[in-house]
Amino acid sequence: MNKDASQDLVQYCIHVEVALRDGIADPEGQTIQQALLSLGFVEVTEVRVAKNLRLTIQAANAASALQQVEAMCERLLTNPVIEEAFIQVVDSRGEQ
Amino acid sequence: MNKDASQDLVQYCIHVEVALRDGIADPEGQTIQQALLSLGFVEVTEVRVAKNLRLTIQAANAASALQQVEAMCERLLTNPVIEEAFIQVVDSRGEQ
Repeated sequence: MNKDASQDLVQYCIHVEVALRDGIADPEGQTIQQALLSLGFVEVTEVRVAKNLRLTIQAANAASALQQVEAMCERLLTNPVIEEAFIQVVDSRGEQ
Repeated sequence: MNKDASQDLVQYCIHVEVALRDGIADPEGQTIQQALLSLGFVEVTEVRVAKNLRLTIQAANAASALQQVEAMCERLLTNPVIEEAFIQVVDSRGEQ
């Protein structure tokens, strides 16, 4: 009997942090800083905002999972002109 | 001569991750997952989105900085009904 290929896949949890590159203006962060100042939190000198994506993905191994997520970052998740992505494999689940 | 109190302050860099609680629907994550699927990334089974805030803050010590950031989370940065915050002191700069 043929073995189902999907049985060889492992589930990975991958964190992708998409952050604005240094020097790129961050209006969302500036707005939050202004709001904090108006609430009396005058000790805050800078706020920068990034996005954290937690992807659950099926892959044969961690290297393959990373490669796929890098391709996703290139094609959809980041704008490489102003953003950079930090990819981290957090854990793998569903090992068989 | 009086010593300027601000000279005793240290600059801390603090990361706050504001994430939706487990079980709360994440339409932004679902939209990203659908977009990935339509690009052919069929191995992705879930996407959750969180926000990372990087605060630069002046405080007397790390405990005081943490306390202030916890107060900011309560008053502005999170909606505790649907979100939770993970606070982490990343580094301190400007030690005198």
